[in-house]
Amino acid sequence: MRILVSNDDGIHASGLRTLVAALRKEHDVTVIAPEYEQSAVGHAITISSPLRVRKVFENDVFFGYAVDGTPADCIKIGIKSILDFEPDLVISGINHGGNYAKNIIYSGTVSAATEGTIFGIKSFAISLNTFGIADFTHAANFAVTMVQEISNIELPEDVFLNINIPAIEKSAIKGVKVVKHGTSRFVEEFERRTDPRGNFYYWMKGEMETGENDLETDYHYVKEDFITITPIKYDLTDQITTDRLKYLEKSIEIN
Amino acid sequence: MRILVSNDDGIHASGLRTLVAALRKEHDVTVIAPEYEQSAVGHAITISSPLRVRKVFENDVFFGYAVDGTPADCIKIGIKSILDFEPDLVISGINHGGNYAKNIIYSGTVSAATEGTIFGIKSFAISLNTFGIADFTHAANFAVTMVQEISNIELPEDVFLNINIPAIEKSAIKGVKVVKHGTSRFVEEFERRTDPRGNFYYWMKGEMETGENDLETDYHYVKEDFITITPIKYDLTDQITTDRLKYLEKSIEIN
Repeated sequence: MRILVSNDDGIHASGLRTLVAALRKEHDVTVIAPEYEQSAVGHAITISSPLRVRKVFENDVFFGYAVDGTPADCIKIGIKSILDFEPDLVISGINHGGNYAKNIIYSGTVSAATEGTIFGIKSFAISLNTFGIADFTHAANFAVTMVQEISNIELPEDVFLNINIPAIEKSAIKGVKVVKHGTSRFVEEFERRTDPRGNFYYWMKGEMETGENDLETDYHYVKEDFITITPIKYDLTDQITTDRLKYLEKSIEIN
Repeated sequence: MRILVSNDDGIHASGLRTLVAALRKEHDVTVIAPEYEQSAVGHAITISSPLRVRKVFENDVFFGYAVDGTPADCIKIGIKSILDFEPDLVISGINHGGNYAKNIIYSGTVSAATEGTIFGIKSFAISLNTFGIADFTHAANFAVTMVQEISNIELPEDVFLNINIPAIEKSAIKGVKVVKHGTSRFVEEFERRTDPRGNFYYWMKGEMETGENDLETDYHYVKEDFITITPIKYDLTDQITTDRLKYLEKSIEIN
């Protein structure tokens, strides 16, 4: 398979490196990833400044392309300018840290998979659920398994898979769950500090707050030592509400 | 009503200024908006650097707070740190340029309304569909109308409204359409240039490509001189595909 790999931790991140090493044993892998870490960029794209693309070598062997932009930029410039073929698959990751529940809307990792899907290419995002010291080996092995499976998995054209891997010994993983994303979310606080010149500044901090009725979700099951797979679509219309609010077409006056 | 107003064009943008002037005739309005233009930032948040908040005055009268971050940052720091009450409504806009079809995933304007909804506050985003010289007057008047209507409009807790206004004379507006977002999208090209030192760089450019079967949508109707209202939800799970792929829980082996 011809696979395009990106991420949001940047081209030097060990999650991406471990993934690419595992995939290259059997597949033709092109890496196009951000030059610098891009966590929490959401689905940002770069329109006000130009992009630069740099070839990255490892021990004099070409490794991939670094783009001084966002994950979404990487997929766009990769497919429209760098590659002269359409890849069979886009993989984003392996992210250092889970991407689940409501927090996926902030995820650069997820945005790269979204962007692949927009181009009509099967895509998945994969994340290892730890912010501590990470061993990406079995997450990479699971990615290889998913690459074997993916051609048999039927997906609507606007849907991709978001995968979270528990950061535990492989033998302790309880199984795979195909579930919705949770309603839990990171609840922010802002810590106000004073700089040496006496001016205030604020750091965003906070912690995950478990949503109610959040049992059958990615956030719940990855904490319970399951690998989770969540089909994500980027059609954001609430069709039921659209139908219900049709009456506004007659009742609202334009002043 | 106590209304929190933000945008992605920045606190000095005339779309926001016109909106706030119209709303302040009847409502208690707090402005918390980006210090600088943040177009196409998607749902980015600032976690790697601190945020600064600056009070902005107009003719010595306090106008609002400028945040050196993204639209999502503005809503978060507004609700968690700046305001000592919960607003009744979040409005994002008036954006200079339409926010419709697939492009809404890149929209900072839309992200501020999403963020308001995450906090459980009724929210809408409003955009004027022109990149040319813009008169925001009747878009602002429509926002005032929507503020009057909004308490009567029942919305699920994870849904907000995305509104697009045609940039034409008020008398030429044909009506209001409550419709889904389109499948049309901006199709990118990258123009390669050479800098004075001989290095390549790339500008993203492109144009809207109309999707197939895209008639009953925001993109279609705003071009046809209707105001469009699209209920947007940020639950991204494709539930049908989730149910259909449950078989993977048994078939995938963890290597």
